[in-house]
Amino acid sequence: MSILVVGSVAFDTVQTPLGRADEVLGGSASYFSVAASFFAPVHLVAVVGEDFTPAHGAIFRERGVETGGLSRMPGKTFRWSGVYGEDLNQRTTLLTELNVFQHFRPELPDRLKKIEFLFLANIDPDLQRSVLRQMKRPRLVACDTMNFWISGKTDAVRETLKEVDILLINDEEARQLAEETNTVRAAKRILGWGPTSLVVKRGEYGAALFGPRSHFAVPAYPLLDPVDPTGAGDCFAGGFMGHLARTGRVEEGSLRQALITGSVMASFCVEDFSLRRFESLRPEEIRTRQKEFSRMTEFEELA
Amino acid sequence: MSILVVGSVAFDTVQTPLGRADEVLGGSASYFSVAASFFAPVHLVAVVGEDFTPAHGAIFRERGVETGGLSRMPGKTFRWSGVYGEDLNQRTTLLTELNVFQHFRPELPDRLKKIEFLFLANIDPDLQRSVLRQMKRPRLVACDTMNFWISGKTDAVRETLKEVDILLINDEEARQLAEETNTVRAAKRILGWGPTSLVVKRGEYGAALFGPRSHFAVPAYPLLDPVDPTGAGDCFAGGFMGHLARTGRVEEGSLRQALITGSVMASFCVEDFSLRRFESLRPEEIRTRQKEFSRMTEFEELA
Repeated sequence: MSILVVGSVAFDTVQTPLGRADEVLGGSASYFSVAASFFAPVHLVAVVGEDFTPAHGAIFRERGVETGGLSRMPGKTFRWSGVYGEDLNQRTTLLTELNVFQHFRPELPDRLKKIEFLFLANIDPDLQRSVLRQMKRPRLVACDTMNFWISGKTDAVRETLKEVDILLINDEEARQLAEETNTVRAAKRILGWGPTSLVVKRGEYGAALFGPRSHFAVPAYPLLDPVDPTGAGDCFAGGFMGHLARTGRVEEGSLRQALITGSVMASFCVEDFSLRRFESLRPEEIRTRQKEFSRMTEFEELA
Repeated sequence: MSILVVGSVAFDTVQTPLGRADEVLGGSASYFSVAASFFAPVHLVAVVGEDFTPAHGAIFRERGVETGGLSRMPGKTFRWSGVYGEDLNQRTTLLTELNVFQHFRPELPDRLKKIEFLFLANIDPDLQRSVLRQMKRPRLVACDTMNFWISGKTDAVRETLKEVDILLINDEEARQLAEETNTVRAAKRILGWGPTSLVVKRGEYGAALFGPRSHFAVPAYPLLDPVDPTGAGDCFAGGFMGHLARTGRVEEGSLRQALITGSVMASFCVEDFSLRRFESLRPEEIRTRQKEFSRMTEFEELA
């Protein structure tokens, strides 16, 4: 089955202890769609400016991401710049220039309205809902959000959550959204607002899946040489949704496997700047790492 | 098989968002021995002052912890006091009064020198080594340490590590000890110094086991109402060593199960102040939670 992602395409300038990258392809929809493209057909809806050249979109073509919904508007593409501290967990945003992204009002062409799997990447929650309204009963809807919307548009985020099956956010955002300092309590609260599942991304500590009656957690893949964590959360979501769309199944067992696949794609993302690691990534490498997750987490049940 | 633990017995005064406890039983050896006592015979070597009454030691008697090595010295028992922030991850130490603990020079009676499993809790690394020297070829030696010794007695810590099989420390301590910002690199480095296994405790994020050729990680048990995290790391070590001593096996599979048992005992510890939760803890509750760890981490391998 196919996936539709609506989100941002940006030019990022990133500095980490291992180097820097200038004006490289970034944005939530870019990361998501490239990661998901390893598992299912992906349709991308986003906006870019006049400075976005065919060279910038090369990875979408290589990965077969369908970009008919990538509209071009007068002005400049969204720009973001940030610097990471020694341990890669500390990030300081140096610049956020919305540019054409501030006028983004996604209008779906008819051909995209019947896609089964919808991912609403981190955009204004009102826009997320306007996309949802245009869709014809998608099989599964997942979304992301961030502290900016949680604090600035709390009610709109809550409205969106009513119509979403799965929310994928990080630890801190979950606590902020639920106004709870304990993640388990926060999860319980958020699940009361609409989603049937909550995925909490914990960076180097892995990820957890909270369902109405179940809890599942996986560690992160242990990386000796992480380079740049930018986009890891979006690649996680891409792998997660990619797995579900590939199998067409969304029950607990599939969600658990999707969490592993999300973790695997996030781990590859972190190994290089921007989407570079995915240019050379082979399906066998994905399978190997998926299997390593089994080795890394299995133990004999205690009698 | 039996376990010998050498460490501290203290009176703690702790404040958390859920309440406070004044002058309650604490200290690394107390937490460790009570947690371990659910799995194997435990012998405790530590020091207390004249203010330590039989009532203070009630839990040791109830749990069958052998306290012949708990010596009484003129003066006051070690006191520690701390306050936790809203999310229980932030702790501020208000007071550390070593009292009789500063004169602690553990001398093992002969009957304890042949015990198979030795745990050197968080004490001066020189004392840890002096205990080791008194032992007659223990089957397995594990130890803990802390930032105070890592920064103040770096060489002594490194010397001790040469003679230890398993080091159990938290994330931050591992990075500090190895002078590496990445935990995976830190683990690799530490394993080069002597221990064959490293257990990294990550609080609410669980724990990881690093061996020469393997990596294993488990999430923490999800608690809706954590009360007081004091001693959780020592109870983790107690459950970990307890499992190994009970089965008498120390190969990879047993170490993995021991990590689960450690996580289970840490989760109980956090549910109340001091060692209170263990007063009523039943073996069936431990088994139930051990099994929940399987439910919480299992997934079907990806094809």
